[in-house]
Amino acid sequence: MTAQTQIAAAETLVLREDLGPVARLTLNQPAKINALSEAMLTRLQAELDRLAGDGSVKAVVLRGAGKAFCAGHDLREMQGARQAPDGGRAYYTALFAQCARMMTSITRLPQPVIAEVHGVATAAGCQLVATCDMAVAAETTRFGVNGVNIGLFCSTPMVALTRNAPAKHAFEMLTTGEFIDAARAREIGLVNRVVPEGEQSEAALALARTVADKLGVAVRIGKEAFYAQAGMSLEAAYAYTGRVMAENMLHRDTAEGVQAFLEKRDPDWKA
Amino acid sequence: MTAQTQIAAAETLVLREDLGPVARLTLNQPAKINALSEAMLTRLQAELDRLAGDGSVKAVVLRGAGKAFCAGHDLREMQGARQAPDGGRAYYTALFAQCARMMTSITRLPQPVIAEVHGVATAAGCQLVATCDMAVAAETTRFGVNGVNIGLFCSTPMVALTRNAPAKHAFEMLTTGEFIDAARAREIGLVNRVVPEGEQSEAALALARTVADKLGVAVRIGKEAFYAQAGMSLEAAYAYTGRVMAENMLHRDTAEGVQAFLEKRDPDWKA
Amino acid sequence: MTAQTQIAAAETLVLREDLGPVARLTLNQPAKINALSEAMLTRLQAELDRLAGDGSVKAVVLRGAGKAFCAGHDLREMQGARQAPDGGRAYYTALFAQCARMMTSITRLPQPVIAEVHGVATAAGCQLVATCDMAVAAETTRFGVNGVNIGLFCSTPMVALTRNAPAKHAFEMLTTGEFIDAARAREIGLVNRVVPEGEQSEAALALARTVADKLGVAVRIGKEAFYAQAGMSLEAAYAYTGRVMAENMLHRDTAEGVQAFLEKRDPDWKA
Repeated sequence: MTAQTQIAAAETLVLREDLGPVARLTLNQPAKINALSEAMLTRLQAELDRLAGDGSVKAVVLRGAGKAFCAGHDLREMQGARQAPDGGRAYYTALFAQCARMMTSITRLPQPVIAEVHGVATAAGCQLVATCDMAVAAETTRFGVNGVNIGLFCSTPMVALTRNAPAKHAFEMLTTGEFIDAARAREIGLVNRVVPEGEQSEAALALARTVADKLGVAVRIGKEAFYAQAGMSLEAAYAYTGRVMAENMLHRDTAEGVQAFLEKRDPDWKA
Repeated sequence: MTAQTQIAAAETLVLREDLGPVARLTLNQPAKINALSEAMLTRLQAELDRLAGDGSVKAVVLRGAGKAFCAGHDLREMQGARQAPDGGRAYYTALFAQCARMMTSITRLPQPVIAEVHGVATAAGCQLVATCDMAVAAETTRFGVNGVNIGLFCSTPMVALTRNAPAKHAFEMLTTGEFIDAARAREIGLVNRVVPEGEQSEAALALARTVADKLGVAVRIGKEAFYAQAGMSLEAAYAYTGRVMAENMLHRDTAEGVQAFLEKRDPDWKA
Repeated sequence: MTAQTQIAAAETLVLREDLGPVARLTLNQPAKINALSEAMLTRLQAELDRLAGDGSVKAVVLRGAGKAFCAGHDLREMQGARQAPDGGRAYYTALFAQCARMMTSITRLPQPVIAEVHGVATAAGCQLVATCDMAVAAETTRFGVNGVNIGLFCSTPMVALTRNAPAKHAFEMLTTGEFIDAARAREIGLVNRVVPEGEQSEAALALARTVADKLGVAVRIGKEAFYAQAGMSLEAAYAYTGRVMAENMLHRDTAEGVQAFLEKRDPDWKA
């Protein structure tokens, strides 16, 4: 490949479509089951960074092209790094840091991010589902954090999984490497909605549009506060969110929203 | 209204009945769907403060008069505060602090508090359900943290909601503004028991009486420890609760309770 | 009893069987429903300490002999300590510390521990189930933290229970003293798998063998990280688990495991 062809290939690794106020990102390397290679992580990070500053986007859908959502890290690429003098230590450390930064960027993104999941979501692919603010899955989807099967415990996926699912169920997935189906994933808190195979795009988009219809500044304020207050004591969380709500009340469009509600009419929002 | 009439009206905003060892508080402004106005918060706080020192009360039921439990803050009253020179900032900050203090007083109350829920519980009304130690709901009840629909994200209700429900399900409620029914509320941990419409008073009272039948000092010790140990590390939590249990064992009535159990007879409790 | 007979009796309080890479511990005092007496705690601690250093054991099953799993502390023994000049304070403090140390040793044990539960698991017996990394239960099992019924709130069992089950459901069990069945225990996160009465030994062993089949060092790394990252902020948890995964990747057997996966063959693990 020439340098120009490489750049072009990298540019199509993640596709972005704008569907009104919803941006849809598609992991687009189906031949590798959309593995989170270095190049894929770099491209996805770039798209997330661009979305963070894009006031026209109110919600994001993240999905995978081809027969499955995402199969986790690119093991072939990772195995190649063993040739380095340090056996790959510096490479692996940097790779997991890059991946964690991407995952954290989803949590820090001002807009809600909805995973649209089908086929399989394994290892870091399952982490991606757990990391998104919400998830919609085809009922045939299978979820696993199955690195343990090849001797690589899914320690970083565990961070996202255990912040969503009950301890014993997370422990079972991590140490048995067994898959769960979409209905079970909903029961344990990993996905919000399960729909028939083939309807997941429509359902994810519908959920994204519901959120995008709300006052953007209120959703932005709320998502930030959602994660910020999570680890606080009750008193600290109330002190913080009390200030957040007072700020929210002072917003011009919120004044209009409350007034419209009291007058039983639709709000006339400028934002 | 004369000053005297205002005081009389305020006094009936929250009703208290004593049913043996169970105190039942009823939010009593059905025309406003029992909104948590300043006056209502003040009255409820006064009742909670009074209960905190009342050793004869062993459990509390909190419910709403009329067709619904509670619809959250009094939006008309809040909108009025915008006329202040600061646009209402000082007022809103004080209001959310007052509300948080009331919610925290439920958690800090020595006696368990059971929400008896029917109709709707929205925004700060849903927060009230999440804040109570337990909740019994009519199966027709609908729950929502739907401030986002009018541009005011339910940031303070979120504090209580996310300490009860899984992250993704809480996020969905907060950002879509959609209602869930009582069965779903039980699935996600927001209520303990769901009963047919019309049986919620009886069921809440039955649960309260079950708790009130226990040794009061043991329940009081336990409720305090329940919330105190929640954020601690495993080691710190065990060090703390070990001391709590040793204290509990030394209580005269506990000695009698254990002895009665060993002798297969009913305890003769003084408290 | 002579001193020698006492030692022999103590030695059979907990039985250990080695079933290939699975060690099975059986609480063996059915006449006392396997109560966690001082002697039982001491013996169980000794077995756990021995297992911690035993590289040949890859997973542990913990069960109870006779008609039930475990009924919690030995109340008769505890009641006896009241004769001391301090009313038992020093004794109770030491006893709860000893029990907490045993529970924490299960969490700190390098190998996953699976509770095999039948009959009843009450008070500290229910805590033992909650403490194990996973649990398999006969469908007829009943679970309770019912110390409140005799005036002794289950404050230390609460530590383990509230780290597994949703707040309101845990609060209900603790303050009503009511039992839940195995299906409900699974719903609230207290057990992983429910099987017909009589099949729990086979099911627990099957789960243990599934885990024992994995690369031992990966499971050990993962279990330690599971609990270590639980209380961390998102950023701290990712920084920590990123290092853990890099270390895991550098292990010789992990290199082989990944390579075998890429070559679609079984790994040739030395460990």
